[in-house]
Amino acid sequence: MDAVLRQSKSMCPFLKKTSPATLRALSTSARHASSPCGGSMSNLQTIARRCPVMGKAMAVQTAKVGKMGLGGIAAIGAVRTFTNKTGRARLHTSRVREARPMEDTLFSRDQIPRPKHVKPTVAPARSQVPKFNYEEFYNAELEKKHKDKSYRYFNNINRLAKEFPRAHMSNKDGRVTVWCSNDYLGMGRNPQVLKTMHETLDEYGAGAGGTRNISGHNQHAVSLEATIAKLHAKDAALVFSSCYVANDATLATLGSKLPDCVILSDSLNHASMIQGIRHSGAKKLVFKHNDLDDLEAKLASLPVDVPKIIAFESVYSMCGSIGPIEGICDLAKKYGAITFLDEVHAVGMYGPHGAGVAEHLDYEAHLEGRPNGTIMDRIDIITGTLGKAYGCVGGYIAGSAKMVDAVRSLAPGFIFTTSLPPATMAGARAAIEYQTEYQGDRRLQQLHTRAVKDALSEKDIPVIPNPSHIIPILVGNAELAKKASDLLLEKHDIYVQSINYPTVPVGQERLRITPTPGHTRELREHLVNAVDSVFNELGIKRTSEWAAEGGFIGVGEAAPNPAMVQPLWTDAQLGVDHVVREMKTGGAVGTEALLESASLSAVSNAAA
Amino acid sequence: MDAVLRQSKSMCPFLKKTSPATLRALSTSARHASSPCGGSMSNLQTIARRCPVMGKAMAVQTAKVGKMGLGGIAAIGAVRTFTNKTGRARLHTSRVREARPMEDTLFSRDQIPRPKHVKPTVAPARSQVPKFNYEEFYNAELEKKHKDKSYRYFNNINRLAKEFPRAHMSNKDGRVTVWCSNDYLGMGRNPQVLKTMHETLDEYGAGAGGTRNISGHNQHAVSLEATIAKLHAKDAALVFSSCYVANDATLATLGSKLPDCVILSDSLNHASMIQGIRHSGAKKLVFKHNDLDDLEAKLASLPVDVPKIIAFESVYSMCGSIGPIEGICDLAKKYGAITFLDEVHAVGMYGPHGAGVAEHLDYEAHLEGRPNGTIMDRIDIITGTLGKAYGCVGGYIAGSAKMVDAVRSLAPGFIFTTSLPPATMAGARAAIEYQTEYQGDRRLQQLHTRAVKDALSEKDIPVIPNPSHIIPILVGNAELAKKASDLLLEKHDIYVQSINYPTVPVGQERLRITPTPGHTRELREHLVNAVDSVFNELGIKRTSEWAAEGGFIGVGEAAPNPAMVQPLWTDAQLGVDHVVREMKTGGAVGTEALLESASLSAVSNAAA
Repeated sequence: MDAVLRQSKSMCPFLKKTSPATLRALSTSARHASSPCGGSMSNLQTIARRCPVMGKAMAVQTAKVGKMGLGGIAAIGAVRTFTNKTGRARLHTSRVREARPMEDTLFSRDQIPRPKHVKPTVAPARSQVPKFNYEEFYNAELEKKHKDKSYRYFNNINRLAKEFPRAHMSNKDGRVTVWCSNDYLGMGRNPQVLKTMHETLDEYGAGAGGTRNISGHNQHAVSLEATIAKLHAKDAALVFSSCYVANDATLATLGSKLPDCVILSDSLNHASMIQGIRHSGAKKLVFKHNDLDDLEAKLASLPVDVPKIIAFESVYSMCGSIGPIEGICDLAKKYGAITFLDEVHAVGMYGPHGAGVAEHLDYEAHLEGRPNGTIMDRIDIITGTLGKAYGCVGGYIAGSAKMVDAVRSLAPGFIFTTSLPPATMAGARAAIEYQTEYQGDRRLQQLHTRAVKDALSEKDIPVIPNPSHIIPILVGNAELAKKASDLLLEKHDIYVQSINYPTVPVGQERLRITPTPGHTRELREHLVNAVDSVFNELGIKRTSEWAAEGGFIGVGEAAPNPAMVQPLWTDAQLGVDHVVREMKTGGAVGTEALLESASLSAVSNAAA
Repeated sequence: MDAVLRQSKSMCPFLKKTSPATLRALSTSARHASSPCGGSMSNLQTIARRCPVMGKAMAVQTAKVGKMGLGGIAAIGAVRTFTNKTGRARLHTSRVREARPMEDTLFSRDQIPRPKHVKPTVAPARSQVPKFNYEEFYNAELEKKHKDKSYRYFNNINRLAKEFPRAHMSNKDGRVTVWCSNDYLGMGRNPQVLKTMHETLDEYGAGAGGTRNISGHNQHAVSLEATIAKLHAKDAALVFSSCYVANDATLATLGSKLPDCVILSDSLNHASMIQGIRHSGAKKLVFKHNDLDDLEAKLASLPVDVPKIIAFESVYSMCGSIGPIEGICDLAKKYGAITFLDEVHAVGMYGPHGAGVAEHLDYEAHLEGRPNGTIMDRIDIITGTLGKAYGCVGGYIAGSAKMVDAVRSLAPGFIFTTSLPPATMAGARAAIEYQTEYQGDRRLQQLHTRAVKDALSEKDIPVIPNPSHIIPILVGNAELAKKASDLLLEKHDIYVQSINYPTVPVGQERLRITPTPGHTRELREHLVNAVDSVFNELGIKRTSEWAAEGGFIGVGEAAPNPAMVQPLWTDAQLGVDHVVREMKTGGAVGTEALLESASLSAVSNAAA
């Protein structure tokens, strides 16, 4: 709290009994034309003039106008009033830096230099001051993005349900193969999902027609939330417009409501969590990506009784790394924190029922229906999406009944928004139920991932090593990454979006490939040859070249950490262990033979 | 900025050259076990001990431990470090209030008293301090809501497309009539919308499969945005997951990016705008609801060159009032502000093409296809929803090409979220196009609104007067409003949700009724009789009783402002002027006769 305000509060009965909100309102709602200098004057100043102590002080200040100004009371509360400082009209045209709230300088906002035209050297009269040029400002912001190559050009990609994973672009007759969709399992064209959606659309119409509280709550929401809760073995779940909203609303709500809450956030967390933490106003401590030591140091620095949320992900989608979930649960327990785990890129994809990485870590226990005491059971809040492996749209949280009810009751981002359409909720529930029962899609997806990673590595193409289903190909330059993506599309009919800043750090630009069960041998060979050709054409650095420089973010590094390369899905879990054994005894057999044998096996091994 | 920090910065070369972000990080990332008192110590303090000036000062302070503590340097930056003040371990168990950021006390966060158990009177050792009890905290928050009657119980309402506006609850065989849906025009069951959605679902699947940048951009997004831009006669439009997200993301982005932006916000603005403004970190000035004088006073208090956004709505959904759009445009022009108009409850419902109230105000010009220079043309940013009158889900902004491109390029809430499904976007486009061409639904909706308002008023039931399609019935008590809603549902098979705090102020609790084209005579009579009976049963105050007390928020007031009661849709625009003339010459004819005559006329008068 500002020292002046503290001091003033201790002396002044008015300041003492007035709430901070009122003080703020009084400081900001300036009345014009009431200032002795032609400048604006806040209501707080007007009130202060009536005060026997401040009134005199202000009279003295007014008399000294031009020398010291009215800064004193304006500083109380440090609210950004546009109070004049020298008492001259000139000050209407510039900001009083001292009168800004702390957050401007130390916390949230960018330090944007003012455009030149608003800092005139000679003070013009009010009518001469140019108004702010908004269009020029938008243009300048866009120019910056063009300059640093972070401007995004959207590709018109129409994914065809009946020709998955192919799509057409603006020309309906052309075809491209989509290699970067997050519809990881092709559930967007799953017949059971589509049938459910068609039926629900006919029976209950296109939209929900209201917020959950006002006519937008229905049996589809009830059963979807029950299905999600069951999937994660939690008491309850809550569905949001998207998982961006789920993360943002939940962290903002808990972080602002829990008294003095501190949020510990992995340095690679998704934008939705970063925003939620910012919106909470809570103290944030960023720990190094997947670094338990750093996390523990930060936890240990905090009082044990202070509420703390550790926010992290299971699969980090841009590099494919996997969070140390069990270790984080241990630390949370030790230091009295709760865990907030984003399983957005993992639900449907890991675990015997597709509940995510947390479920996968106790594969046998969950397969046998014993969730108690498992790692998933220990997580306090799991968030997930219905828009990636489940093929629809929407997001959710799952956890204890009280936590879910509190977020349901307090989060504006949940309360004040129209529910997802009945058909969307019904379709998502069908997708979850399908993937709960059937292991074939995610196993085949993993096998295809292994095959693509192997084939790319054989061609010296730099795949950033990771244990998940994500295949990030390092390019390391924004312009080159975009060119590579464009070439793949134009010359090879392959769509792989380039990933540039701010989604990944500058210098780590990449192509991010996501195979699905539909990306069979022919498509894979086409992809690998096309990427190889594009690397040649553009002279993009190969793995061996990165290695010659000592390696970079795992690429070309001599002894990669086994945790970074060993796939999370084991041979046994994929049902390919016997094939691998045979291969090892029978000599070299290609990935392709393994895959073909395995995919049959995986499909027939679908979970009971 | 904190006075101590300012002063220190002017003297200390280290503080001067270090960015605020780094200072903040140094102040918060405390190392444990390095403090001379067994307390925690921030990295900033560790560095300060090396400083020839501060090091000495700190040594003196350490010697005085127990008397004055280490408060000095902790106050630098006023960051919420958990630094001890007296140097005793006790301080691990309580917060140093002085070390909190300004925003905690003056701005955003609630002042929540800490639970008793964390303020022990005798200092326990670390291991004895109880960890924070999260479940107890959630429970306490929920208890508060139960106590003040703001706890929300959701009703399971399944709106039947083929029996609009009827629905079933958990029992599929029962039927209730829904009188509070925002599917104002019944577009959720419109055959053209459903047909488009079915076809798109079959051809392009259930979900978009990615963000707009990564495989989620497609022809459906392109043509929906083109349709929206055309509807509002703007250069461009951008679609979001919801209009909550559209408002939040757009205001947060523009408010934080425009240098020193000030946002002027109507006091009754929707939660999504309030959140967006809060998230922007921009200065906010709240002006009195629909009060141009108050708005002008606030605009005049600001420097002319500072960017300003005036954020307001056309139809305020809980009271049905309508914003003074033209007056606000005039003020915006005069003071160099831009206008941000939320038409969420108006799109589809007003104007010859359903573009909203701004279009309605120049009815003839837009009917004749001359948007240039109209009020709608003067609005800088229009936001709307696809989830209410258009019957689907999603939200949007429309405006200049550069503004839309800037928001597209900068708003995390747009960039980092999965696109709406192709079928949703195609369905929404079909709904907009249908309502652009056809006037019958919104005219009939208006006539039904008039009829319900008249019938309720005849029975002395207090309708809060307004010029729009919203029918708020004043109850004035949270418990009574909920009981009335429950009784209507249980006894009369009518679903009207009660609207309580925080959606409306305490004491203004209401039932909010929204007729549709499907709410014909029989349903209306049933509703009016049921409400009358419930008012009797619960002894809810009638209009005459409010009048006896001098009136309240328009109810029972002697001379209501004509702008508050005159419907925005005129007789001529509804195509009923000749009927009204006939009625006036031929003596008293009931509303019903007008309606029946008019609805035929309205339907046949569908815009060319």
